[in-house]
Amino acid sequence: MDMTQREEGAASEWVNEPVEERDPSLLMHTERPFNAEPPNSALREMITPKGKHYRRQHTPVPVVDEDAYRVKVGYEGKELHPFSMAELRQHPERDIAVTMMCTGNRRSEYNTEEDGDTMGLPWKNGSISTARWGGTLLADVMRAAGIDQDSAEAAGYNFATFWGIEDYHISVPLRKAFDKHGDVILASKMNGEKLPRDHGFPLRVVVPGYVGARSVKWLDRVVLTKEETVGMHQRGIAYKQLPPNLKDITEIPKDQIEALPPIDRVPITSAITAPEPDSQVKRGDSLTIAGYAYSGTGHAVIRVDVSIDGGATWEQAEIMRADETQGLRSGKAWAWVQWTYTITVPKEAAGTLDICCKAVDDQYNQQPHGISAIWNIRGILNTSWGRVQAHVVDGSRL
Amino acid sequence: MDMTQREEGAASEWVNEPVEERDPSLLMHTERPFNAEPPNSALREMITPKGKHYRRQHTPVPVVDEDAYRVKVGYEGKELHPFSMAELRQHPERDIAVTMMCTGNRRSEYNTEEDGDTMGLPWKNGSISTARWGGTLLADVMRAAGIDQDSAEAAGYNFATFWGIEDYHISVPLRKAFDKHGDVILASKMNGEKLPRDHGFPLRVVVPGYVGARSVKWLDRVVLTKEETVGMHQRGIAYKQLPPNLKDITEIPKDQIEALPPIDRVPITSAITAPEPDSQVKRGDSLTIAGYAYSGTGHAVIRVDVSIDGGATWEQAEIMRADETQGLRSGKAWAWVQWTYTITVPKEAAGTLDICCKAVDDQYNQQPHGISAIWNIRGILNTSWGRVQAHVVDGSRL
Repeated sequence: MDMTQREEGAASEWVNEPVEERDPSLLMHTERPFNAEPPNSALREMITPKGKHYRRQHTPVPVVDEDAYRVKVGYEGKELHPFSMAELRQHPERDIAVTMMCTGNRRSEYNTEEDGDTMGLPWKNGSISTARWGGTLLADVMRAAGIDQDSAEAAGYNFATFWGIEDYHISVPLRKAFDKHGDVILASKMNGEKLPRDHGFPLRVVVPGYVGARSVKWLDRVVLTKEETVGMHQRGIAYKQLPPNLKDITEIPKDQIEALPPIDRVPITSAITAPEPDSQVKRGDSLTIAGYAYSGTGHAVIRVDVSIDGGATWEQAEIMRADETQGLRSGKAWAWVQWTYTITVPKEAAGTLDICCKAVDDQYNQQPHGISAIWNIRGILNTSWGRVQAHVVDGSRL
Repeated sequence: MDMTQREEGAASEWVNEPVEERDPSLLMHTERPFNAEPPNSALREMITPKGKHYRRQHTPVPVVDEDAYRVKVGYEGKELHPFSMAELRQHPERDIAVTMMCTGNRRSEYNTEEDGDTMGLPWKNGSISTARWGGTLLADVMRAAGIDQDSAEAAGYNFATFWGIEDYHISVPLRKAFDKHGDVILASKMNGEKLPRDHGFPLRVVVPGYVGARSVKWLDRVVLTKEETVGMHQRGIAYKQLPPNLKDITEIPKDQIEALPPIDRVPITSAITAPEPDSQVKRGDSLTIAGYAYSGTGHAVIRVDVSIDGGATWEQAEIMRADETQGLRSGKAWAWVQWTYTITVPKEAAGTLDICCKAVDDQYNQQPHGISAIWNIRGILNTSWGRVQAHVVDGSRL
């Protein structure tokens, strides 16, 4: 059960779903609304292939007429300034590789007999994907709407609140929205093409370095507010991590949840995308271990450690970055890294290779090793070491 | 051995040490240069008592004439603008509670038979302390020296490089130095009094949210540079964390070290300051467990989890903050939190309480559980769970 999304409802609401955009290889968690993740083969690509991006929908996908469409921008309680798509295109275009990750990525690993089940879709490795997003800097559009950062902050406007056409809404700090190094864009393109409907056609926000939930799709308006918006996805339980000892959500007072900060920037994480779990590998054969690693805030991944003995010993993987703008000292490493590490399966290997990975970012943030100490009833931010087991066999048994 | 500090040298160099500023309760690691840490009793105070702050000196303490003193500010290769203390005082004064932590804090715990010895002073819990620092925003002083952020950045000046009178020098990103939410100050006061000589009299930099090493004491000049400064404390090994499998520093190529980013912002960490290690505790008695928790970048600590069974189960500690400006959503939580958790020692407790703590910050960054996977030859950033054992006895045995 995931109470952050609506129930399926009447069949008539779903007749306009963009089924043609959805690759059949996706692992579907719910069809209505559509929530699905790519297979490991797609997760091993720096830019996720078309149709294979993960989908995290809360509602039916809205149908939008691009010509009639306007995004509205302004202060709460005042008249908003409408912009057509053509007007947005008058500003300089940005094209940025950005990884979107759902806070629920790798939730399924939390659901163990020992620690108990969590609430939400049981994502595996794949509620994460990466695209090049093209669009206009939000800061440019806000200025075109007559908004000056210093004046807004001085008047107590601390948040940019994004509303989607389908009524999903969240807030991000105004400081991030205006940050000239923050790269927040109103995106109309994904990998050089118009946005697919599943990904927010005709216009979405892309908030680099933040969790996917902040990058509102089918954008209706950007409203400067003094407080965070009210609602489950901002102040409520959707993106709050509770302590491991709180096992029953009904025992947790609402004000205790609302007092917590929302998850904006993903802590350092990594995962293994090859070999597949419980593969068989042959003594003496070459084995390439692969995966991704990602840290929010624009922190660059500087190192990925890989172990084949459950973390007793480590070696370093080779790292590939999205492009030269996302380097170690950029502060703007908005995309994941892809990494590989190739071994020869030891002749003396017995039984099982307990393969682990963990990443380190440019501020030397570290991943926790296991799930028990970070387990939480909402099952979010499983940023523990990636783990996969491979079973060692002789050639004749393969 | 700590190769980041000079050798003791001739006795005549040390005749001007401010010995009267140094509380006798400090645990001294080296006398010349003076490196010492407070006892746990002092670490339990929100503002560390006078004389009991940790000291991390690389050289003898310089003797400076305040009246003749000038701090120089400007672009590399151009004439620098000198400011007297009186001129600095013409700008608005800021007073901010800031924790300074050495990257080597808790290094001693790394030095185990299993993992091997690390290089550097064997700090326990205490290469960390907190003061209220008073002074002038560096951004105001740079502007008074005729420096404009946008022009500087456009011309490729990406760093503010700080030089101390004793020749210690490091760089911080210019973006941090100018950030209006960054609170970088040139401090002339510590807890309302003139800076003690040990802490940088007459003027030091305080870079909130960054490791102590970036807050240069006895400041001689602030120079805008295009590149990071050259030297051990910036590009060299001093503040770089290597992977756990590199056990021999002579095997590591210099360019591999220089390619790593320096440690600027401390990842989330915490430690236990009560009870003392290996205390005896009595069944049925009340026991208050106490400690601190800190995260760099201005991230607020939102939760501290405490376990008395080695991390099998957790409860939450009560948290105290430095002041109301350092709250959960401030982004400017520059000081540690102090925390306490009181239990009754269980009647059925047998043998040993394995007390652990771990903290979570406002971006839900987590601490790694143990040292082996983060062990590194320089012994820095031991941000693993805090751990202390207490031995349970009957009343008659105390």
